[in-house]
Amino acid sequence: MAELASTPAPPYYAVVFTSIRLPGDDEGYAATADQMLELAREQPGFLGVESARGDDGLGITVSYWSSLEAIRAWREHAEHRLAQEQGRAKWYRSYALRVCCVERAWQFECPR
Amino acid sequence: MAELASTPAPPYYAVVFTSIRLPGDDEGYAATADQMLELAREQPGFLGVESARGDDGLGITVSYWSSLEAIRAWREHAEHRLAQEQGRAKWYRSYALRVCCVERAWQFECPR
Repeated sequence: MAELASTPAPPYYAVVFTSIRLPGDDEGYAATADQMLELAREQPGFLGVESARGDDGLGITVSYWSSLEAIRAWREHAEHRLAQEQGRAKWYRSYALRVCCVERAWQFECPR
Repeated sequence: MAELASTPAPPYYAVVFTSIRLPGDDEGYAATADQMLELAREQPGFLGVESARGDDGLGITVSYWSSLEAIRAWREHAEHRLAQEQGRAKWYRSYALRVCCVERAWQFECPR
């Protein structure tokens, strides 16, 4: 069952990664995407992640971090850099990365 | 074909809306979601939007705005408030809203 990320009170940081896939190599892509999620969870300063890809091929992954230093260290992690290179070489038609400071946050849970 | 949002150079604002749907009323939900996207595009300060929902029911919509005032005005728009109430009453098991300042951004386009 899908779960929303459980994050602390702001301020903290979010990396919004939006992408459109090139067709093909779905297995290789999925395996590496799963590995990167596992690896991200182990990094210092990691707070949570949410990810979705729709039928039109547009995907959004938002990861949450305690600091800009934590984001920088994850970006430069050796295995992650290799995955980034593969992404540019064969998996993504386009992507955008946005580093954001989360200033305010609200949550809702259905009471039933 | 899916397209990424085309946004200006930072700083600007992002609203990250992540949600998990309750089962049922897919048509009513989809119709209102489409109407809200149309209406958002007409608001002052709207810069773009990206949205995806995966097969596990987790959805992410990121909308981009020029200012916090633009975000506040959209949140309080009468038709949008009605949709928010319907969302809490019948469409969402849970959701989170995060208002963020986009500090840095990069884009990649496949050269082929």
